[in-house]
Amino acid sequence: MSAASYDDQNVLAKILRGELPSHKVYEDDKTMVIMDIMPRGDGHVLVVPKAASRNILDIDLEDLSSLMATAQKMAQALIKAFGADGITLQQFSEAAGGQVIFHTHVHVIPRFDGVSLRPHTGDMADNDVLVANADKIRAALA
Amino acid sequence: MSAASYDDQNVLAKILRGELPSHKVYEDDKTMVIMDIMPRGDGHVLVVPKAASRNILDIDLEDLSSLMATAQKMAQALIKAFGADGITLQQFSEAAGGQVIFHTHVHVIPRFDGVSLRPHTGDMADNDVLVANADKIRAALA
Repeated sequence: MSAASYDDQNVLAKILRGELPSHKVYEDDKTMVIMDIMPRGDGHVLVVPKAASRNILDIDLEDLSSLMATAQKMAQALIKAFGADGITLQQFSEAAGGQVIFHTHVHVIPRFDGVSLRPHTGDMADNDVLVANADKIRAALA
Repeated sequence: MSAASYDDQNVLAKILRGELPSHKVYEDDKTMVIMDIMPRGDGHVLVVPKAASRNILDIDLEDLSSLMATAQKMAQALIKAFGADGITLQQFSEAAGGQVIFHTHVHVIPRFDGVSLRPHTGDMADNDVLVANADKIRAALA
């Protein structure tokens, strides 16, 4: 597994290159944030470093710091955007760890009292809902 | 919730002050790593910043960077110590987000192909198992 390499044909690399569409809510020099299209909760976003890395096991420390600074910014924005009661962060490394797309990313999920995370069914969210939630997050960041 | 304050009587603050015991596997100027006594997988550790903060919403960016640098070091050590196939990171902020102890901490959990996370039952792990797993992690870090 330590020999596992970075394949630049992964979905996040394609989104970063503009080869696939996304609902982008934030971008800076080092990171990008998009809506998760299979959200485990309303407003679930993915924080993505622009530099290539596979996961927590190989990411540069500087990229990891930038990634987490943006994750914090998003956590604060999600509280504001949705009146969320809490935040769950998840990062999955390698398939056994829950990773599906092999470009490092952090899940930031708004949480609400009494509401469980939805199971990861693979069902896509309604596009209008994603658009509306992305607008709310951009407004909270503005 | 943004007004929620830091209460220095939480369990991790007491462990940091040496007022409660723990299975410590790593320590540096900014962070400490201990075995989770209610592990969701064998070798589950908690990475804890020494500076006071409640969670991702209020932690200083420098402390967050140090925390994640140690989380990466632990992820790599857990792969080596247990021959793990992957790593799951979790960070819970506020009760709705899954937080139980209100001092920032990151869960780093070794994962194995075909093995699900154990549910969070509140059952304590066998002490001898924790001691043995802590020894394996210290050896991997040495």
